[in-house]
Amino acid sequence: MPARPLAPETAESMARKQREISVSEFFLKNRHLLGFDSPRKALLTAVKEAVDNSLDACEEAGILPEINVEIVETDERRFRVSVTDNGPGIVKAQIPRIFAKLLYGSKFHRLRMARGQQGIGISAACLYSQLTTGKAARIRSKVRGRKAHALEVHLDTRGNKPSVLRDEVIDWDPVFPAPDGARKARRFTHGTRVGLEMEAAYVRGRQSVDEFLRQCAVVNPHLQMTYRVVLRKDQPGPDAAEQPTPDVPWTAFRRSVNGLPAPPREIKPHPHGVELGVLIQMLKDTRARTLRSALQQDFSRISSRAAEEICGRAGLDPRARPTRIAHRESEALYRALGETKLMRPATDCLSPIGEEELEAGLRKGIRADFYTAVTRPPAVYRGNPFQVEAGLAYGRSGEDTGLSAEDPVRVLRFANRVPLLHMAGACAVTRAVGSVNWRNYGLTQPRHALPVGPAVILLHMASVWVPFTSESKEAVAHYPEIIREFTFALQECGRRLGTYLLRRKRAAETERKRTYIEQYIPHLALGLKEILNLNEREEGRLVERLTGMLEHSRLDL
Amino acid sequence: MPARPLAPETAESMARKQREISVSEFFLKNRHLLGFDSPRKALLTAVKEAVDNSLDACEEAGILPEINVEIVETDERRFRVSVTDNGPGIVKAQIPRIFAKLLYGSKFHRLRMARGQQGIGISAACLYSQLTTGKAARIRSKVRGRKAHALEVHLDTRGNKPSVLRDEVIDWDPVFPAPDGARKARRFTHGTRVGLEMEAAYVRGRQSVDEFLRQCAVVNPHLQMTYRVVLRKDQPGPDAAEQPTPDVPWTAFRRSVNGLPAPPREIKPHPHGVELGVLIQMLKDTRARTLRSALQQDFSRISSRAAEEICGRAGLDPRARPTRIAHRESEALYRALGETKLMRPATDCLSPIGEEELEAGLRKGIRADFYTAVTRPPAVYRGNPFQVEAGLAYGRSGEDTGLSAEDPVRVLRFANRVPLLHMAGACAVTRAVGSVNWRNYGLTQPRHALPVGPAVILLHMASVWVPFTSESKEAVAHYPEIIREFTFALQECGRRLGTYLLRRKRAAETERKRTYIEQYIPHLALGLKEILNLNEREEGRLVERLTGMLEHSRLDL
Repeated sequence: MPARPLAPETAESMARKQREISVSEFFLKNRHLLGFDSPRKALLTAVKEAVDNSLDACEEAGILPEINVEIVETDERRFRVSVTDNGPGIVKAQIPRIFAKLLYGSKFHRLRMARGQQGIGISAACLYSQLTTGKAARIRSKVRGRKAHALEVHLDTRGNKPSVLRDEVIDWDPVFPAPDGARKARRFTHGTRVGLEMEAAYVRGRQSVDEFLRQCAVVNPHLQMTYRVVLRKDQPGPDAAEQPTPDVPWTAFRRSVNGLPAPPREIKPHPHGVELGVLIQMLKDTRARTLRSALQQDFSRISSRAAEEICGRAGLDPRARPTRIAHRESEALYRALGETKLMRPATDCLSPIGEEELEAGLRKGIRADFYTAVTRPPAVYRGNPFQVEAGLAYGRSGEDTGLSAEDPVRVLRFANRVPLLHMAGACAVTRAVGSVNWRNYGLTQPRHALPVGPAVILLHMASVWVPFTSESKEAVAHYPEIIREFTFALQECGRRLGTYLLRRKRAAETERKRTYIEQYIPHLALGLKEILNLNEREEGRLVERLTGMLEHSRLDL
Repeated sequence: MPARPLAPETAESMARKQREISVSEFFLKNRHLLGFDSPRKALLTAVKEAVDNSLDACEEAGILPEINVEIVETDERRFRVSVTDNGPGIVKAQIPRIFAKLLYGSKFHRLRMARGQQGIGISAACLYSQLTTGKAARIRSKVRGRKAHALEVHLDTRGNKPSVLRDEVIDWDPVFPAPDGARKARRFTHGTRVGLEMEAAYVRGRQSVDEFLRQCAVVNPHLQMTYRVVLRKDQPGPDAAEQPTPDVPWTAFRRSVNGLPAPPREIKPHPHGVELGVLIQMLKDTRARTLRSALQQDFSRISSRAAEEICGRAGLDPRARPTRIAHRESEALYRALGETKLMRPATDCLSPIGEEELEAGLRKGIRADFYTAVTRPPAVYRGNPFQVEAGLAYGRSGEDTGLSAEDPVRVLRFANRVPLLHMAGACAVTRAVGSVNWRNYGLTQPRHALPVGPAVILLHMASVWVPFTSESKEAVAHYPEIIREFTFALQECGRRLGTYLLRRKRAAETERKRTYIEQYIPHLALGLKEILNLNEREEGRLVERLTGMLEHSRLDL
């Protein structure tokens, strides 16, 4: 071997370099995985995580959500994001871990439809704020019947642990601006306020915070929200952060529905979607004393009879201790589970938006001539129930409508009522739209690409577990079952659009003929007057009656 | 509020549901993020992680790598993967954590070019094996001067902790089949063997294990490797796993270079690529007693004079305690760092493949008529040095060459000498190939797409930190600096290809003219014979001399 400039390592010297990597250190170095790759996207991701959490908390607590979002430019490339809600508040002891510890939350271990899933989002936003400005996250929260607290928390990345820098009892009095000018500002006796300062960039457009909140309001018609961005040029003094907030108006999104969506139910895992390793862990963790009761309690769709059948098939005693099975005979049990016919997973655990509200949302957000919406029946992928919805709006090209007959249709994507603004190319939804033959329904379409026309397509997936392609939750993975459901929903919308476009085409033709006849009536009357020798009054009456006939016949020419 | 079927949550009931999520639980549920989304990809990912680790270990220890890969189908949809190397071995105490703990390793905290980066790969493969078959990972390892051990390790997902199921002292005697039939099997006195059983699928093709290993050999010419897949149909008995291994032949990849590549050096972070939060952490962690020495020791490119300048600009005492600065004045220091002119990051820390070896690799792997390769000078993104290489082979269409004049060129992607087989669409490399105007160089090309022609393009990125788009490390993120470097390398290859194609075209024309004249010479001679009244011998001599003239003139017509 040639002489080497550096001493080669040995097994011993390499062992000394091995170290644990905390999950915070990992995501700090890989922050693009969490949606914090550019200053512009960072602002959106931070707002999104805070708003998602507020909505989840309000809905879980049965509170009609009221959210206030304020973004203030504090310095060059620096913004302070504040999100306030009227949710149930957070018990003080939980605040540090929720905001300053990655992988901590209430949603990961449950199968329940929610916006948050992973226990990463909001603490990642706090981590990014701390990384780029060194500042702590400022949390204020008020729980009914308890004192309100203001905390400043930092994330110790080495240990992925929170440290509390400040903790004070405060008066809870955040003001929610009135959603329209006429009414008074609103106050609530409970809620949470998150304040983060971060390196960021504010840019308008299709992937902006503005657009995110607008779409949020469309698919959450029960949400009331006020929002503003205060830029430095709008601020009175040079040291803007210290000045009283100037009079920049609030954008209001008023709620259009006065009740909460049906609360989604938590379910147990379905046996056919569980892997062997997970089964073993479940048998170890169960509180049940016998195999039979473990099967019945910890899974969905296993009746007493089915449990007996499974045990029989696996050659196991239904009264055996589950932990014992976990160590020795889990594989036989796993096979028996797979071979036993069971009901499909329960699907009443999903809370779709609904056709009516989806269409109402489209009408509110998009100026078009034709609207339709489809909610598919629930389906299942890898043991997880899910449900797909599609909406379509079709109108005229124009600056006022924002639609164009020359461009590909605009696709709005949502998962569990959260707008997805990035990574459209990697998303199952985009694949589904391209796979439908839109020429059948009257739109032009390049091969395998998005159709072209003055239309907007909205797609929503609701599931107890949405399979995202990355931690930043921007695109849905390409499961064939999911793409198929989206395709069916789109085809139904397409058929309705096709019928509308055909009818419109016929109506336009009829209108053309009618106009022609209307123009012809006076000439006809004049001719008849001469032939029948009518006087002027009689001629007038004739025109009147002919016109009346034309109107009443609806002219099915 | 309407009456609700489920009791709404309160802040208190929600607090009781909050739980820590272990990083293993997280990746278990999100295993598609690690490259284990389908049985087919799982097999490739497991082999890839094991081979990457073997190569890294051999190179760090200055050992010419010898690797043996065996894949045995043990049951329906089940395979046992065994990877054996002649590396330095692993100290026994480290084995459980390296293979059965996510986020544990020696490479994450260092800036040094390596295949592994994150301390996730091989333990993720063990986790997947355990999830799908319930089996432990079997590790055997022998360190020089120590006893060989065989361990079986399990990953406790709840705590992301290893548990050791078996630990025995063994004889170390793995046999490496001879890389060609003639020579004897080879033995080494040190090394590591990883054995994993998992749910998987073996399929040949562009994204197969075969292809991965083949490409691996191309960009690691110092690697010697033997490989085979034993399917159930090739096995003697029904209970194949227990039978002696049958006589399926080994595929051998022999090394073509007898020295190791230059060992990459570890570097310190460059001040202009460090974020405020990271700076604060570094000041807290430093062993230096003064700010000045912390700046000099912990960063690259800060001289004593530069350290003084930075302190002066920030209004800080160079003799101040670093921890004190971390808490109070880090922001001033951060600004001063950004404003001070410093040398660009060192780039001698990179170990590219090299033009000569890249071209040799292409010649070995691809039957073509023209080969070229370019290694760009090092560049920097976000403070991280990186270097880009491109190779191009151009040949004839045909089944023997595997090239086609009608299809897009084939693009082979590599990062730190590791082949990337998935997610080409999301990769910066693909973007770069499409952005070059290949029509300038004689290929056809649809707009913004890959060029069309019987060619293969190879691209390699070497860096102390490759920014991948996901944990499975399949695609490089779209940093503009990286795309630019790839584009420059491709344009250079393109120019050379253009010159070659032009020369070939001219040569073909010349050849055509030459053939024409050759055919004409006898007629010319016959004519001259009549005019000059020559005899047969003189005519023969004339033909000979005319042909000689034609040959010597090189016919620059």
